[in-house]
Amino acid sequence: MNVSIIAIGDELLIGQVIDTNSGDIAIRLNPMGWRVNDVQVIADNAADITRAIDRAFELSDVVITTGGLGPTKDDITKETLCRYFGGELIENADVLENVKHVIEKRGLKMNELTERQAYVPTSCEVIQNRVGTAPIMWFEHDGKVLVAMPGVPFETREMLDRAVLPRLFKRFPVDGHIEHRNVMVTGYSESLLAMTIADWENSLPAYLHLAYLPNAGIVRLRIDGQHPDKALLMSEINYHHSQLVKMLGPEHVLSDKDIPLEEILLQLLIDKHYTIATAESCTGGNIAHLITSIPGSSEAFKGSVVAYSNDVKHNVLGVSEESLNEFGAVSRQVVEQMAEGVCRALGTDCAIATSGIAGPTGGSDEKPVGTVWIAIKTPSRVFSFSHRFPGNRQRVIFRASMASMIMAVEEIRQN
Amino acid sequence: MNVSIIAIGDELLIGQVIDTNSGDIAIRLNPMGWRVNDVQVIADNAADITRAIDRAFELSDVVITTGGLGPTKDDITKETLCRYFGGELIENADVLENVKHVIEKRGLKMNELTERQAYVPTSCEVIQNRVGTAPIMWFEHDGKVLVAMPGVPFETREMLDRAVLPRLFKRFPVDGHIEHRNVMVTGYSESLLAMTIADWENSLPAYLHLAYLPNAGIVRLRIDGQHPDKALLMSEINYHHSQLVKMLGPEHVLSDKDIPLEEILLQLLIDKHYTIATAESCTGGNIAHLITSIPGSSEAFKGSVVAYSNDVKHNVLGVSEESLNEFGAVSRQVVEQMAEGVCRALGTDCAIATSGIAGPTGGSDEKPVGTVWIAIKTPSRVFSFSHRFPGNRQRVIFRASMASMIMAVEEIRQN
Repeated sequence: MNVSIIAIGDELLIGQVIDTNSGDIAIRLNPMGWRVNDVQVIADNAADITRAIDRAFELSDVVITTGGLGPTKDDITKETLCRYFGGELIENADVLENVKHVIEKRGLKMNELTERQAYVPTSCEVIQNRVGTAPIMWFEHDGKVLVAMPGVPFETREMLDRAVLPRLFKRFPVDGHIEHRNVMVTGYSESLLAMTIADWENSLPAYLHLAYLPNAGIVRLRIDGQHPDKALLMSEINYHHSQLVKMLGPEHVLSDKDIPLEEILLQLLIDKHYTIATAESCTGGNIAHLITSIPGSSEAFKGSVVAYSNDVKHNVLGVSEESLNEFGAVSRQVVEQMAEGVCRALGTDCAIATSGIAGPTGGSDEKPVGTVWIAIKTPSRVFSFSHRFPGNRQRVIFRASMASMIMAVEEIRQN
Repeated sequence: MNVSIIAIGDELLIGQVIDTNSGDIAIRLNPMGWRVNDVQVIADNAADITRAIDRAFELSDVVITTGGLGPTKDDITKETLCRYFGGELIENADVLENVKHVIEKRGLKMNELTERQAYVPTSCEVIQNRVGTAPIMWFEHDGKVLVAMPGVPFETREMLDRAVLPRLFKRFPVDGHIEHRNVMVTGYSESLLAMTIADWENSLPAYLHLAYLPNAGIVRLRIDGQHPDKALLMSEINYHHSQLVKMLGPEHVLSDKDIPLEEILLQLLIDKHYTIATAESCTGGNIAHLITSIPGSSEAFKGSVVAYSNDVKHNVLGVSEESLNEFGAVSRQVVEQMAEGVCRALGTDCAIATSGIAGPTGGSDEKPVGTVWIAIKTPSRVFSFSHRFPGNRQRVIFRASMASMIMAVEEIRQN
């Protein structure tokens, strides 16, 4: 099935907001064998919206629009869709009830503008937006479908999964059975990985396809399969998956699930009945933030000390003043003492510690911007390693956080 | 001047990579009064590229493409542009020298693939890409211009500023003067804000335009103006800006700059010579992460204790066991003791503390998911407030982080 996406909103064309909805849609459609033909990002303008829909229907059978559904006067998508597909805007009692419910849950009061959210074109079927006030509208058009979704990213993600995708996949059933297998691998550059698995990839049957998703020291590989014979598909995809893992080396495979790295780490800790803390300097709390973004993280994660100043490294984590003076904050000695100190202070079995130069200033010839020391403490030892990450401050913080968690998974697995 | 952007790359349509280049281009063009009409995100496919260029030239006088210029066989933008604009691909000695220089600086060796980067269409003028191997190509077409830029975001940003934008602004000089004023306001819902300023907005002269950007308890407003008479423009935009601030109430205006909230907080702390720490339970280190993502944050930010478990709240922050037992971790008493405790432990003037239920589990009738207590300690007092945020775990964490920083700015300003 072919899909075109239209992202609507002036804010997307002045650079204030980045369109992440298209990516959230594509990443969910891709594993089902659906193909996104194009994304059009356009302004809140009736002529532009109409032209974009015409073009999208030329290319694709399914069109998903996001945004332009707010209650303020600059949002005109609903009126434009009503003119495009016919009918008139009338108040829908179910939508009104839903809007009232959402507004109440937010601790707000209805007003003239929010009440307008309950008006929908008679030409659409409504999908109730359970997490926002803009109703989702489903239009049928010459055997094709347009779904108008809100622009707020969390509303779009939530309602894609809860209602829109299940309904699209029911409306346009996939031909045959669909299976996927994931391999999350570390320790390979993208080009080394491509060379390593080239023969294996070429030997795949036509109904199995490999997708690569490299990011920050990890490559996520996904085998997508589609075939009418379910038993054959299962047996073949399992066989090729196990061959792939064997070829890459099981020690390089972080997971066979497509889940965030922080969830892999957390699950490993819970399986081993270990607790963990982080002592963060250059990563500034980002590792703690990533781990605690996973529901249930309190089962293994006890807390963190963000030791941005040397005083905090010394007073709270017990890093020796001699080490700080002699080797500097960005050193093996200091980062290992940070890991041991946070285990002691927070009473955990394991710890991750980071100290580095995120930039843009603070670098030297010996320790340029991007230099990061990482230490992992487990019940059996403290292991540390220095990295040098490219890119700007945000990128260094992100890469150091990912590398820390990869190192932690590798170390803790051996315990 | 009108601009269309075309972002080229298969990876953009499977959700693997988010197109951030369009935003980087738009945010630089907008203040000059240039308008981005649309962004087309398309695959590495000659027919799609050709169709996208046709459409872009229909709408706009300037077209900027990004991506599809790598040396591998899937990148076919250069060949397609050569067919579109005529001429042939020949090796360009200056480009070859630049490619060699860039490859050498990266510690790599030239190979067959990188050498191909030096071939450019005879129909274009080359702008040397000083930070990458893909040459930037400038095509003139019936008085219109297409500039083909690389897809790597830092190369695009760097070369936009260094060479491409100065040349575009010279080629198409701006008509009249351009001015902007920002207002970052809190304490208004989007719809209440719209109603409050409706009369003011309607009274704006035609050459002043208001842009809204609401997000997480803050609405960013920007007045954009363009007029041949600079003195008139300045006087009018200043008048309407001050009227707007007066109407909204200066106490609700967080800043008149368009910068992140964490930067406003940091700047305020530095101006007042205050230091700060955070004691985070439900926000899990996210506030520390946001503050430390700003370069120079170490001037005011000393560190953080992420006290996820009650043990850490008691042992490290000194929260009394009686309070934890009697009122629970999510309470005014506990969050205020966390704020005081982290100030003591880390030796700071100010603190932000959070304790809440981010979900999806852990809620009760009395304290449902989304309940978050926030305390702000300043040299003069501890102030705390309970919020209830809608949405999933990520959303609650994000909203609580933003609300904490808004409260901190409001409290610290009064000191």
